[in-house]
Amino acid sequence: MTDISTGVTAASGFRAAATTAGIKPSGNPDLALVLNEGPEFTAAAVFTRNQVFASPVKYTRAHNDGTFHAVILNSGNANACNGAQGDRDAEATAVAVADALGVPASEVAVCSTGLIGDTLPMDKLLAGVATVTADVRQDAATSAEAGLAAATAIMTTDTVSKQAVYRGDGWTLGGMGKGVGMMAPSLATMLVVLTTDAHVDDPAPFLKSATGVTFDCIDIDGSTSTNDTVILMANGASGVTPSGEEFSAAVHAVCLDLAKQLQGDAEGVTKRVNITVTGTGTDEDAKTAARVLGRDNLFKCAMFGSDPNWGRTLAAVGMAPVAMDPEKISVSFNGHPVCINATGAPGARDVDLSGEDIDVLVDLGTGGPGTATVWTTDLSHDYVHINSAYSS
Amino acid sequence: MTDISTGVTAASGFRAAATTAGIKPSGNPDLALVLNEGPEFTAAAVFTRNQVFASPVKYTRAHNDGTFHAVILNSGNANACNGAQGDRDAEATAVAVADALGVPASEVAVCSTGLIGDTLPMDKLLAGVATVTADVRQDAATSAEAGLAAATAIMTTDTVSKQAVYRGDGWTLGGMGKGVGMMAPSLATMLVVLTTDAHVDDPAPFLKSATGVTFDCIDIDGSTSTNDTVILMANGASGVTPSGEEFSAAVHAVCLDLAKQLQGDAEGVTKRVNITVTGTGTDEDAKTAARVLGRDNLFKCAMFGSDPNWGRTLAAVGMAPVAMDPEKISVSFNGHPVCINATGAPGARDVDLSGEDIDVLVDLGTGGPGTATVWTTDLSHDYVHINSAYSS
Repeated sequence: MTDISTGVTAASGFRAAATTAGIKPSGNPDLALVLNEGPEFTAAAVFTRNQVFASPVKYTRAHNDGTFHAVILNSGNANACNGAQGDRDAEATAVAVADALGVPASEVAVCSTGLIGDTLPMDKLLAGVATVTADVRQDAATSAEAGLAAATAIMTTDTVSKQAVYRGDGWTLGGMGKGVGMMAPSLATMLVVLTTDAHVDDPAPFLKSATGVTFDCIDIDGSTSTNDTVILMANGASGVTPSGEEFSAAVHAVCLDLAKQLQGDAEGVTKRVNITVTGTGTDEDAKTAARVLGRDNLFKCAMFGSDPNWGRTLAAVGMAPVAMDPEKISVSFNGHPVCINATGAPGARDVDLSGEDIDVLVDLGTGGPGTATVWTTDLSHDYVHINSAYSS
Repeated sequence: MTDISTGVTAASGFRAAATTAGIKPSGNPDLALVLNEGPEFTAAAVFTRNQVFASPVKYTRAHNDGTFHAVILNSGNANACNGAQGDRDAEATAVAVADALGVPASEVAVCSTGLIGDTLPMDKLLAGVATVTADVRQDAATSAEAGLAAATAIMTTDTVSKQAVYRGDGWTLGGMGKGVGMMAPSLATMLVVLTTDAHVDDPAPFLKSATGVTFDCIDIDGSTSTNDTVILMANGASGVTPSGEEFSAAVHAVCLDLAKQLQGDAEGVTKRVNITVTGTGTDEDAKTAARVLGRDNLFKCAMFGSDPNWGRTLAAVGMAPVAMDPEKISVSFNGHPVCINATGAPGARDVDLSGEDIDVLVDLGTGGPGTATVWTTDLSHDYVHINSAYSS
């Protein structure tokens, strides 16, 4: 346990608390609270793009008007697809937190992660809310340990907690995240909370820009959860107003750090596969093509088998709905050219992919300036096992 | 061995021959020829939509002008991504067949299936062409056995050959297919040849219409090969001109039969999963949503585990880029409602999915007339094994 917090309590004026409410059958911690003490309560959030979204997303999105005082997060139950009861439960959770903290319910963001389709055990959850809203007032709630406890309480099939920090000149930006794994037996979610004591007028564009090139570029299995939420809260407690350039770099750095931790702990992962596409008209086209490749099961199985199968790589990117020159596509694995102008390079079948990290570079041959990187993993027996061997 | 052919030699005036040219390391048959003796040589073909397409697709598409006299098909090598050499080899194959048969090279369709990225062993292939072009003139080339031999010679990781037939009043439509499996170590392809002795002025619209609701609705893993080709040849030898309605029904029936055989023999399959989507604005929207669900690895792992996980079903279809009413989505598994208006139905977690066939019905709640069915499979350990355990 370190004295230097790397998570949500790293920045001045932020507190955290966590408890075991009893939502998870395992008896592991499953409820976390992050509280902003001000003086400012600026906030920004981004949410899942899934048309089927959970009640906590519905609630938090409805109140995402530039300020939040606190975020309450539970694991073990996604509160998704529970109809009107789910909506009432998400609101009741916010109201209970708000009443205990003495703030309006519209100032409380709600996040849930876990099984889809079971209603929340509200008696247990509300008892847990009473605990964390009391604990968050204790001195210990500003400690590194409190941040770590919160990061631990939001884990589902995560095997390690994820925290990150950026330290500026007199100010700090910290964060925690969970996910890119699936819990037994259903979808878990990506939840991220970032806190900073910098003064920032409008963090929303910084958050959107950073998530676009970090969390949005993780693609483990193409499955987008019903609960994904990233929230940034800024309180100005440091008295420092970083330049837009520095704040942008800070948000990007912390999001990138957390995103890499999520990739490395993805379900069944044995290889981290980093796909960079170049030679497209736009960055967006490059991202689309990289994502198509990152979702191709044949390519992912080849990576699991350490097989430098550039043929599958070409066949997969060939289905991307972007402009390319099929006769000028080139591919490198770990820096070794394996395919030049859509034809195999000498020694291509002998490139060593046995390590845990594989860098794939695909140039789509249009000569355009577009480029993007997507981080995925291999498709392993453990992925199939984790996601099939448990009953609902 | 039956006297009644169910494949490409079922219709009058079609001959077939097959041999072992030595392209496959296994020593199994790997070269097939289908010859139309006329009197008519009407033909239609559809090809892969992949922007990266193989040299034989390039050659055959260039000559797809409404007539073909013969189709030469090899397995064991896809002749894809071999650059100009691949193009020259595809053309040389057609020329060799054409010279032996005494027809223009533009009248010979070429199909290949197997490993991507290795050039064809042209010495072996051309020796094989000499054999099949001689054998196809023998009396035996019109037999059921010859049709079966051709269907067998185009197999890669297929475990059974696939043939189908429709018998009209005085006329016949037969066909063979292979694929929807991946060979070690790379992409195999879907190849289908249909033959009929009916007189048909323009079979192209019939073929396009039938493939749109049969082969286009198979989606095993979202991976589209570089070599997919479906060819229909009609010679009018029966003297019968079926009505458009009957011919349409015949092409549809034979394509459906072959498509179901391909689904049932897909790599690693333990479950046949038939996904029907209703309640969309258009059939095309329904097909898009069914395809998104059929490609979702979490859903497919749940099917492998016989897990009636309707939460994953909703999360997956929620990402389909089509209009839906998220609060009115309903799901049934094998006829049992498991989710009604986006909320779990009583007993949903107890529905028995232990059989080999699973029917999934998803209504997207818009009240629109759109409907479509996509046939997929589960995602099993064997799929991962088959596609990762072999080196290139």
